[in-house]
Amino acid sequence: MTDEQQIRVAVNGYGVIGKRVADAVALQEDMELAGVADVTADWRARMATSKGFALYAADPDRAPAMRAAGFEVTRGLDDLLGSADIVVDCTPKKVAARNVETYREKGIRFIVHGGEKHEVTGHSFVAEANYTSAIGRDSTRVVSCNTTSIVRTLTTLKVAGLLGSARGTLLRRATDPWESHLGGIMNTLVPEPEIPSHQGPDAQSVDPDLDVITMAVKVPQTLAHLHYWSVRMPRMASRDEVLEAFRASSRIALIKMSDGLGALNAVKEMMADFGRPNDSLYEVALWEDMLKVEGDELFYAYMVDNQAIVIPETIDAIRALTGAEHDGSASIARTNAAIGVGAFTTT
Amino acid sequence: MTDEQQIRVAVNGYGVIGKRVADAVALQEDMELAGVADVTADWRARMATSKGFALYAADPDRAPAMRAAGFEVTRGLDDLLGSADIVVDCTPKKVAARNVETYREKGIRFIVHGGEKHEVTGHSFVAEANYTSAIGRDSTRVVSCNTTSIVRTLTTLKVAGLLGSARGTLLRRATDPWESHLGGIMNTLVPEPEIPSHQGPDAQSVDPDLDVITMAVKVPQTLAHLHYWSVRMPRMASRDEVLEAFRASSRIALIKMSDGLGALNAVKEMMADFGRPNDSLYEVALWEDMLKVEGDELFYAYMVDNQAIVIPETIDAIRALTGAEHDGSASIARTNAAIGVGAFTTT
Repeated sequence: MTDEQQIRVAVNGYGVIGKRVADAVALQEDMELAGVADVTADWRARMATSKGFALYAADPDRAPAMRAAGFEVTRGLDDLLGSADIVVDCTPKKVAARNVETYREKGIRFIVHGGEKHEVTGHSFVAEANYTSAIGRDSTRVVSCNTTSIVRTLTTLKVAGLLGSARGTLLRRATDPWESHLGGIMNTLVPEPEIPSHQGPDAQSVDPDLDVITMAVKVPQTLAHLHYWSVRMPRMASRDEVLEAFRASSRIALIKMSDGLGALNAVKEMMADFGRPNDSLYEVALWEDMLKVEGDELFYAYMVDNQAIVIPETIDAIRALTGAEHDGSASIARTNAAIGVGAFTTT
Repeated sequence: MTDEQQIRVAVNGYGVIGKRVADAVALQEDMELAGVADVTADWRARMATSKGFALYAADPDRAPAMRAAGFEVTRGLDDLLGSADIVVDCTPKKVAARNVETYREKGIRFIVHGGEKHEVTGHSFVAEANYTSAIGRDSTRVVSCNTTSIVRTLTTLKVAGLLGSARGTLLRRATDPWESHLGGIMNTLVPEPEIPSHQGPDAQSVDPDLDVITMAVKVPQTLAHLHYWSVRMPRMASRDEVLEAFRASSRIALIKMSDGLGALNAVKEMMADFGRPNDSLYEVALWEDMLKVEGDELFYAYMVDNQAIVIPETIDAIRALTGAEHDGSASIARTNAAIGVGAFTTT
């Protein structure tokens, strides 16, 4: 491994996704973090520099404020892009769409996240579903947290010949844990106005064959999303067969209510006790003991850490776009090992 | 109406359900509230006496404390039962099971609520589904809030020939609005350990033909339950046909997101503005503009006020058991008119 050429990765946007991507890139033996670009001049930027990450001013207009706050940002986004093989865009929705023009002008490979539309890159990525089709492309979109979880789980069922139609109800966390003024709700529930919600069609942007319909509702908590699924299988199958299918994915962690993991917060606490950065749950955490098979129908629920689930996919997307690894399974295994994915599934 | 014999109704337990039942009974021209029995000696009992309701000590051991607090409770539950034609038990889960022995000894007709098992009475009641089979019985069980909503909606679809199988995800309010120390949860979600959850089988205690499976999760809010349903219809049907089916029930109120009713709290506020006691939502409030038909599948969501939805059913159950009204539709119409059910459905 030590002799291989390292992929130089730029991270544009050091928010909840960007900071996790930066940490994960830094842990990969075949990658090097070229630096991170952001516009903040407060504690968030200090976190980057305190880790030794090179900080760049993402916006020239913000550079003076960043310098005034003590950050040595002599260089801007162009410099960062010039020193990297690929850029991972982790800027807020819509900002990324503007950045894409810059990336294209510079001729640098890029990854956007699920806030952007499929059309921005023409390719939507979930490692276990379509790694191969991303190899050598100039760009891809790592789909949103909810969509990633849907594609991971349904792909696993599909591969095992257990997927007919899938109907899901998605309980969406109202805002991120660190937020206090953006999008939070209290003591109510806010249904998404449209059925189906967008996540079903979004999953089809990765795999058009998926027969999936979703409904979504915002709930007053910040920890994670929670999905409930009702799946029709093309044939009768045993509960054990279904569990084996899910176990085939290294990124679906089976957990048990009876193991004390009876609520979202307990699972997050276990991630903290594992010492994971930001208590990140990279896996889809699916309750094994809740899962039920009734005839040709399957019912289950799982938890999705909206800030963390796309991190391993992003690392794999870097290897796919740069062509550094043509075997998706090999990339997945390497990513998993570097950041500890799959450490706690039941056996 | 004025010449008819009034049914004398006792209410045992003056909690969130009991106080609403007492108010609703007092509003029926063909009923008279014989009195309410409780064990509390605080503001809750004062609310009953301030309304002019006769207060009885439900437990002789509690009578001294109630008298010390200034309540003239010279009489006990036996006296109340002796002066009534029927008793509605609104005591907490398990307490009711003990009371039932007393009711049977006294030979008084009785109604229990959804916290008790079907076997306690051998009959489970939802007015629009099985009023007739309760006529003249000595007892029935008005099923729980969630189950009432399920039976109301699925019965309506069944009558219209639109019900195949129904699969629901139930977001349960964590505790009642007035509670502060009982069962509340914060910033997390707590799945019910078992799939299917008990509400599906409970609906079958009213109508064994229903093909219904439910999953449930406790959410950190106190206002109401929220259900998401995915229904297979036995044939293709238009969206309008489905809406007409739901409109046939006077206890399903169609509401619209586009009317500013985009969350549970907005609906509750509208109930307050209607001047309903305790902001009670007696109806299943179903979002018309969210409802979606895809081929032979139907998707919709509705809100269930867990404290209020069983009130009209309880009034109808009183008429059914006492045989005062043999026509279920007539009882339903009379109850609705007295407490204002059906005042806000879209047309």
